[in-house]
Amino acid sequence: MTTRDKLAALRSLMKKHRLDAYYVPSVDPHQSEYVPACWRRRGWLSGFTGSAGDLLVTARMAALWTDGRYFLQAEDQLADSGIALMRMGDPGVPSLLGWAASRLKKGQVLGVDPRVMSMAGAESFAETLGDRGVKIRYVEQNLVDAIWTDRPEPSTAPLTTHPDSVAGETVAAKLARVRAELRDHGARALVLAALDQIAWLFNVRSQDIEHNPMAIAYAVVTERGATVFVDPRKVTAKVRAALKGKAMLRPYAETGDGLRALARKRVPVLLDPASINQWIVESLKGAPLLCGPSPVIAMRAVKNPVQIRGITACHVRDGAAMVRFLKWLETAVPAGGQTELSAAAKLRAFRAMGKRFRDTSFATISAYGPNGAIIHYEPTPETDAKLKPRGLYLIDSGGQYDDGTTDITRTVALGPVTAEMRRVYTLVLKANINLTRTPFPQGWAGGRIDALARQALWLTGYNYNHGTGHGVGQYLGVHEGPMSISFRDHDNVPLVPGQFLSIEPGYYAAGKFGVRLENLAFVASAPELGSDGGNWCRWDVVTLCPFDASLIDLKLLDAAELAWLNAYHKRVNAELAPLLDAEHRAWLKRATRKL
Amino acid sequence: MTTRDKLAALRSLMKKHRLDAYYVPSVDPHQSEYVPACWRRRGWLSGFTGSAGDLLVTARMAALWTDGRYFLQAEDQLADSGIALMRMGDPGVPSLLGWAASRLKKGQVLGVDPRVMSMAGAESFAETLGDRGVKIRYVEQNLVDAIWTDRPEPSTAPLTTHPDSVAGETVAAKLARVRAELRDHGARALVLAALDQIAWLFNVRSQDIEHNPMAIAYAVVTERGATVFVDPRKVTAKVRAALKGKAMLRPYAETGDGLRALARKRVPVLLDPASINQWIVESLKGAPLLCGPSPVIAMRAVKNPVQIRGITACHVRDGAAMVRFLKWLETAVPAGGQTELSAAAKLRAFRAMGKRFRDTSFATISAYGPNGAIIHYEPTPETDAKLKPRGLYLIDSGGQYDDGTTDITRTVALGPVTAEMRRVYTLVLKANINLTRTPFPQGWAGGRIDALARQALWLTGYNYNHGTGHGVGQYLGVHEGPMSISFRDHDNVPLVPGQFLSIEPGYYAAGKFGVRLENLAFVASAPELGSDGGNWCRWDVVTLCPFDASLIDLKLLDAAELAWLNAYHKRVNAELAPLLDAEHRAWLKRATRKL
Repeated sequence: MTTRDKLAALRSLMKKHRLDAYYVPSVDPHQSEYVPACWRRRGWLSGFTGSAGDLLVTARMAALWTDGRYFLQAEDQLADSGIALMRMGDPGVPSLLGWAASRLKKGQVLGVDPRVMSMAGAESFAETLGDRGVKIRYVEQNLVDAIWTDRPEPSTAPLTTHPDSVAGETVAAKLARVRAELRDHGARALVLAALDQIAWLFNVRSQDIEHNPMAIAYAVVTERGATVFVDPRKVTAKVRAALKGKAMLRPYAETGDGLRALARKRVPVLLDPASINQWIVESLKGAPLLCGPSPVIAMRAVKNPVQIRGITACHVRDGAAMVRFLKWLETAVPAGGQTELSAAAKLRAFRAMGKRFRDTSFATISAYGPNGAIIHYEPTPETDAKLKPRGLYLIDSGGQYDDGTTDITRTVALGPVTAEMRRVYTLVLKANINLTRTPFPQGWAGGRIDALARQALWLTGYNYNHGTGHGVGQYLGVHEGPMSISFRDHDNVPLVPGQFLSIEPGYYAAGKFGVRLENLAFVASAPELGSDGGNWCRWDVVTLCPFDASLIDLKLLDAAELAWLNAYHKRVNAELAPLLDAEHRAWLKRATRKL
Repeated sequence: MTTRDKLAALRSLMKKHRLDAYYVPSVDPHQSEYVPACWRRRGWLSGFTGSAGDLLVTARMAALWTDGRYFLQAEDQLADSGIALMRMGDPGVPSLLGWAASRLKKGQVLGVDPRVMSMAGAESFAETLGDRGVKIRYVEQNLVDAIWTDRPEPSTAPLTTHPDSVAGETVAAKLARVRAELRDHGARALVLAALDQIAWLFNVRSQDIEHNPMAIAYAVVTERGATVFVDPRKVTAKVRAALKGKAMLRPYAETGDGLRALARKRVPVLLDPASINQWIVESLKGAPLLCGPSPVIAMRAVKNPVQIRGITACHVRDGAAMVRFLKWLETAVPAGGQTELSAAAKLRAFRAMGKRFRDTSFATISAYGPNGAIIHYEPTPETDAKLKPRGLYLIDSGGQYDDGTTDITRTVALGPVTAEMRRVYTLVLKANINLTRTPFPQGWAGGRIDALARQALWLTGYNYNHGTGHGVGQYLGVHEGPMSISFRDHDNVPLVPGQFLSIEPGYYAAGKFGVRLENLAFVASAPELGSDGGNWCRWDVVTLCPFDASLIDLKLLDAAELAWLNAYHKRVNAELAPLLDAEHRAWLKRATRKL
């Protein structure tokens, strides 16, 4: 079926349901960022495979909204599909909702599956479209599923425990903290749909989503009990034992029954409008609903000392894999035959050589030359570029280890490069260092320090169309809120010690090359500062991997930046050398030599 | 009457009106930041004279909420007043509303004058207190006025015209733009209460508030007409002629009648909840009300080329006055007898020597030694410190010229200083330069670049408890929204060419000294940047006055900062010298010598 065929089939179903428009967001019932294959309806329908993008189909039009990371990719994948690309954030481009409000007429009906509409989304749709007299109809049957005949089954991978010795906190202790928060909010129950929140709270992991060690589940926490709704085929004796006395396990298919039973108790239920879907809201009919951020989010963001130890440790192993990979590139590329995909596979193999490796933490961005300018590029057999001994290669990748999640980007010269490439590389390095080396008052919002990274680029009239950093989980999602370092952080979430984020400025010369340099770092308390009584934070970088010295134009670094770089490289050498053989140690020593 | 006496009298009136609490905000019926003397009820009642601070009085308690700028001053002025100081923003300090919600019991009544309660405030009070079952009663008679026997009369200063040759846009053109915005919002009328909006829209000025060349007025704009409600004693023939055919002039006392007549037309009225008071809302009963920012705010923020010319010109005259003042200080202070107040008066006199001077643009912060650490210090005869030939003197002042408003802060050495003072001065100078010299993408929010100024201080563990910059009017308010450069900019207002802001980082060593360095600058288009097609902005500084070279530790400046400083000083010398005599020219040349 071509995209045009699929759209035609969808439109005929829309007609049957008397819908004038049908909304196909990228999200699943759990508002997951990484969507299990069985729920990738927007991707199947449109052909656009980026992680973010929402589709709206009317009788005559179809349009897909995505953000700056995906403009180039979407342009390519949507070509001749009958779907228009809407570049979010570009001047004059309406939002999906604004577009719907202006195109749909009074009395017309927009349909959507209630399981893929968040409470927050439902509210803004109702408000904006209601003003225009456009109706929203929640259609329980997903219309895409109805035409998607070869839709994959949900995973039945087993649940595993995330032991207290790694989590640093028992399920009982976490539940006690959650219940205290519920009391503070005047709530007596909490419903969770976000898979990473459920995994964190119950110290369980699974493999239901690529790169994301989570299980498809819902959960309910009450004052005395807790229930996890999960496919019984996934439940092992070990997990059942670990949760005994803390949480009941019930089939995923019984979630609706469980919610309706909860609703009959008429106790106030706390729901997070960002992750709870409209189907849950309807299933809880009768119960008083309180809206607020899930208390799990802020708790999970602050890593405890045991977690910090584990995360730090996995970064040493991850760094050793990166060093093996970078050294391998130096000979493998000139030898010929390597491509973006083969290199990504090689890096995965190096990671897998280390202890406790479980998976990659996201689809590796292995991008040669112009592909490096596609911010969230993912090589496919069709795009897979040959690596040649010249120009820039950008590799953004990460590992899931059972003690932590990594996410690192390095850009390296595969051979001769232009002066512009060296200059841009050095500016991006300055950007990274400038943010990393600057302490800030505790509680300052990440979106307010984003510019510290951008400044080195701004001075030259360069910018990058993505945030500077995102939160990262522990053997969980590689994107984890609530804090970020981004101009898109409209909530001004405070940065506090224990949070774990990426720092990843970049620059993208469309059609030519891309540079991004990413380390992960903890927000750490800086008691050495604060002479006037304030609480200060600094960044504790845990990513260990050399920057490419051949790409650094030392004239562009100031003394403080150079000192930071040399100290970092010295540390990288000291921490990684013990994991390497003599040959790799020699390579690392040279790569981290004092500049 | 002591503060305790006043509180007792207020409490007895509260009892009579059966109020359990009475709210005395600092604002007036027009939500002015600078409040005319007749409406400074909070100041009269509490004794605290800062510009921001709200008072809540219950039968047993009285507390005043103010922000970091005023902590030291409020501590001092509230000592032994029976009023507790609530330090807004400090950890654990509840908001006024949070405190009221927790202290007042179900069924208790909080009273307030509807003219000093904004729509936005009324809504949040109703929501928060309503949840707790606390009632709000709008009492038309202001209870403070009832006990304030010697309350000043409102000003009857004449209205003057702000000619098109200075405003750069006629009233007719401005009204046409406002009406187009109203149509876009589906509104057919606009009510204005903010005095600076009325002055801007109708190209009129007056002297009803110290430092603020505005008239006390309300205004209504409809599709075809406009009315300004203003004391008839203020109306001159010239103003009447200038507004003929554009706006009717009616007595201020008839505003209520005018609003009720508008309400009877039943047309949708646009109201800005931030500046419209609850009395207006009640007077418009029956009309459909639309809430949204006043369209005047964003229009007024972008200065047109004629305004930019005028504002730039007045800064040359202002700079010459500053040079005369700084040179005078060098001999006057060692000669003895000068104080903070006498120096402020001298600076005012130097400004008045220049053309088109009308007033100071705010109460001069003339602060010697430890007083410099009080962020919004205003010397009074009681606090007036002698200027001695040692240590730091901070002068934050501005002029109202009929072609523009200035606001400048310089910190100077009056004689020997400590190494710490020089270091801090240099860090604050770096902070100023670092923000000023950094271009940014058009539309970036000011709150997102605030950190560029703070970084130089943060690296040493220093910070300042105020925003980095505020908008400034043209012969209007020295604080003018909507944009700012501040971590408090929660709306992420975009910066666009034509906006005019202050850049004023500082550092305050409580009990020792303060340093602040402030220039005003336009957001200007930077077409020389944007190689990748974006629109870029840079800062065009208009303030012209040397920094104190004796306080600059050149070792702490990097090459780019020093180059910026030398270029700025060169320009200061070139632009100011023509206005000065030989002696002052020689002083200026030395003060701006290449470093």
